[in-house]
Amino acid sequence: MVFFPHRHLIGIKGLSPIDIGTLLDKAEEAIAFNRSREKKNSVLRGLTQINLFFEASTRTQASFELAGKRLGADVMNMSVGNSSVKKGETLIDTAMTLNAMHPDVLVIRHASAGAAALLSQKVACSVINAGDGAHEHPTQALLDALTIRQAKGRLDNIIVAICGDILHSRVARSNIILLNTMGARVRVVGPATLLPAGIRDMSVEVFDNMEDGLRDADVVMMLRLQRERMSGAFVPSIREYFRFWGLDAEKLKAAKEDALVMHPGPMNRGVEIATDVADGPQSVIEKQVEMGVAVRMAVMETLMLSDNGGARV
Amino acid sequence: MVFFPHRHLIGIKGLSPIDIGTLLDKAEEAIAFNRSREKKNSVLRGLTQINLFFEASTRTQASFELAGKRLGADVMNMSVGNSSVKKGETLIDTAMTLNAMHPDVLVIRHASAGAAALLSQKVACSVINAGDGAHEHPTQALLDALTIRQAKGRLDNIIVAICGDILHSRVARSNIILLNTMGARVRVVGPATLLPAGIRDMSVEVFDNMEDGLRDADVVMMLRLQRERMSGAFVPSIREYFRFWGLDAEKLKAAKEDALVMHPGPMNRGVEIATDVADGPQSVIEKQVEMGVAVRMAVMETLMLSDNGGARV
Amino acid sequence: MVFFPHRHLIGIKGLSPIDIGTLLDKAEEAIAFNRSREKKNSVLRGLTQINLFFEASTRTQASFELAGKRLGADVMNMSVGNSSVKKGETLIDTAMTLNAMHPDVLVIRHASAGAAALLSQKVACSVINAGDGAHEHPTQALLDALTIRQAKGRLDNIIVAICGDILHSRVARSNIILLNTMGARVRVVGPATLLPAGIRDMSVEVFDNMEDGLRDADVVMMLRLQRERMSGAFVPSIREYFRFWGLDAEKLKAAKEDALVMHPGPMNRGVEIATDVADGPQSVIEKQVEMGVAVRMAVMETLMLSDNGGARV
Repeated sequence: MVFFPHRHLIGIKGLSPIDIGTLLDKAEEAIAFNRSREKKNSVLRGLTQINLFFEASTRTQASFELAGKRLGADVMNMSVGNSSVKKGETLIDTAMTLNAMHPDVLVIRHASAGAAALLSQKVACSVINAGDGAHEHPTQALLDALTIRQAKGRLDNIIVAICGDILHSRVARSNIILLNTMGARVRVVGPATLLPAGIRDMSVEVFDNMEDGLRDADVVMMLRLQRERMSGAFVPSIREYFRFWGLDAEKLKAAKEDALVMHPGPMNRGVEIATDVADGPQSVIEKQVEMGVAVRMAVMETLMLSDNGGARV
Repeated sequence: MVFFPHRHLIGIKGLSPIDIGTLLDKAEEAIAFNRSREKKNSVLRGLTQINLFFEASTRTQASFELAGKRLGADVMNMSVGNSSVKKGETLIDTAMTLNAMHPDVLVIRHASAGAAALLSQKVACSVINAGDGAHEHPTQALLDALTIRQAKGRLDNIIVAICGDILHSRVARSNIILLNTMGARVRVVGPATLLPAGIRDMSVEVFDNMEDGLRDADVVMMLRLQRERMSGAFVPSIREYFRFWGLDAEKLKAAKEDALVMHPGPMNRGVEIATDVADGPQSVIEKQVEMGVAVRMAVMETLMLSDNGGARV
Repeated sequence: MVFFPHRHLIGIKGLSPIDIGTLLDKAEEAIAFNRSREKKNSVLRGLTQINLFFEASTRTQASFELAGKRLGADVMNMSVGNSSVKKGETLIDTAMTLNAMHPDVLVIRHASAGAAALLSQKVACSVINAGDGAHEHPTQALLDALTIRQAKGRLDNIIVAICGDILHSRVARSNIILLNTMGARVRVVGPATLLPAGIRDMSVEVFDNMEDGLRDADVVMMLRLQRERMSGAFVPSIREYFRFWGLDAEKLKAAKEDALVMHPGPMNRGVEIATDVADGPQSVIEKQVEMGVAVRMAVMETLMLSDNGGARV
């Protein structure tokens, strides 16, 4: 295995093509393992993994939990509802408290961009960012990349259209960085009000309508409309949104015939995606979830092993 | 062991007397195991069990969790409070997401009748119904049957009086089906407003007062008054309910001297059952809980092993 | 190892100096283990630990959970939010239900003083009190003692000043009892409104100002201001409280130069403790958390082993 020089996974930014390739290769090995009957080994036996989720999440937390358990780690979930955050404790105090219990990896999701990076400077263990505000969600980008690579055989020289609510999406950000790093051509497609200010500096082509944005795309990556993060005046009507930006069979025709349809979940059916497309033959949405467990196993194993020789106090 | 032909356990309906007997025999083996100091084996090692509870439950979820852990499975709890159901995801999307993580068994509790059956048609793993609306709660009926069989030596030719809020009770439904299948004589006893419309088609005797209903019964099975499921006008006063339908020492005299007193829990003391009866010598209420872990171990082991040879993709 | 005659740990009260010393010696062995990479053994393999928390807690529940998992136990968390307590079940019914599932140890936190003792009379397994109302929190006192002993080499003939909201603090109570038992000189320092009525009967010196209370102290133990437990008129203003009772660098000068600064967490920074002191060179607050896991491992292992030969039905 190529040496992986990082101790934390805070974002895709900073990873080289070789780093990313290393993680994807390792994840590929885990796919068959997860499909087998006895999907449990001892790679992380004796290590402690803490999932510190300040935002609720079915799939991401479950995916990390299963990844850790199948690798033999002791996994502990800390969700905000049960934590002393409600008693007014700061993020850092919570983290330092957990750190004193000698975890080996801390998986954190937090509403604030930068939370994972801040944590990684304070604790003695590896930190994995499971989503921090609108900043990054690196394991999502990795699992998306693995899904694409499995279907298309490569990541370079493909056209990926990322569509919808780019503004609130850490998924979009991490994907843009990863896909650019690996040589894909990235487009973002969405209403001007849902594009971040600096989007044109991110080496992407920007489209303001689905037909042009999807033309000849190899991959159509829909994003969840994050209405819960929007304030009053800017919340689009669902009917209008679906009409212009929702992926239906008609709009999908603009893309290549074998284009992949992706969505990070949870889906708003009938909002950003039509049900027949979500469940249709081009959809790889469930495959993304499957790749998620494999990618998280690869990330944890790689971080733990590269950390192996390091001094710990 | 007799071959068990089912891959899911959605309800008691559809199980033969041999199926039920097979599960109870297997559960019986687990009783001593659970009482021993080292109550852990590797029967389900490497398998993934997900408890997907859309309704809160102390005893049922705990019982399934311990059953799985003691059999060596990796167990993951998903409770609705932490899930993306709040983000508007559908039951099926949640299930398909979890399915893509390759669980081997999905234990589901849901407020809607039919939820477990629907799920079982969608996922690749075994599904166990841990209660779906007012439909079925098969492991409860199995643990009740095991409790009775242990005390009485048989299930046929005994009189079982199921009393109280039959209308809202999946426990009653599953018990009626199981006890009829095994040759018991089943009575239901309760106010007309708390009996389901089709009750007289279910091969039971219906009684509208406790004294007649309990006369010579071998088993008195009280049900929880589900006030939380009732709407305004139909909620009985607790005092009136206890007076007419609550099991106290006086009413219990109508049953056989060695009649068992059962309750699926959690009890409303002073509502459907008096404290001295709940804690009295005829009560097997804690025994029911003990049998619950044994029955769930038997069910999971049996489903997993019959599933053993099946193709999984 | 000296024989430890207790089956439960309800409080520090009733423990002899030898009992306490035995637990601390055992805990000391666990420190290096927890700092190592493979921190997992099989001491409690096959045993079932249930954490029954009626009050939310990050650190205590996490600490017990990791302690149990690292010793190889099957650990199950039951938090009140997911339990049938909401359905009106009593504490005892909940406990008896769990007891019927044959746990080996029940760790309980409850808002009512006496809850743990009550439980221990009802169940067949060991009970560990993780905090019951304003009564006791014995593992906190043990971890505080271990922290002090590690730094000072002894517990006798040291001056410990416990400061702040003594009235609502089970931590203070357990610490006073333990430190008196081990021969320390204990002071309590706080406003008259936050001292319990019987405090002068507890073999402590009482101080009504920080300067006198901290003079020449070896240990300054700050308590969390439990505003959530106070009713209207008695809630002090935070600014006033910090001015008179908050530990800042200036007030700390009264203590010995190498005095330890302790806090059970979660901290209210700027209320009972200033940030520079909490993070300063005399602070052992994170060390306390580290000692917490070690102490809980020692307690569980000791109770389980002394229970080893006992009859269980």
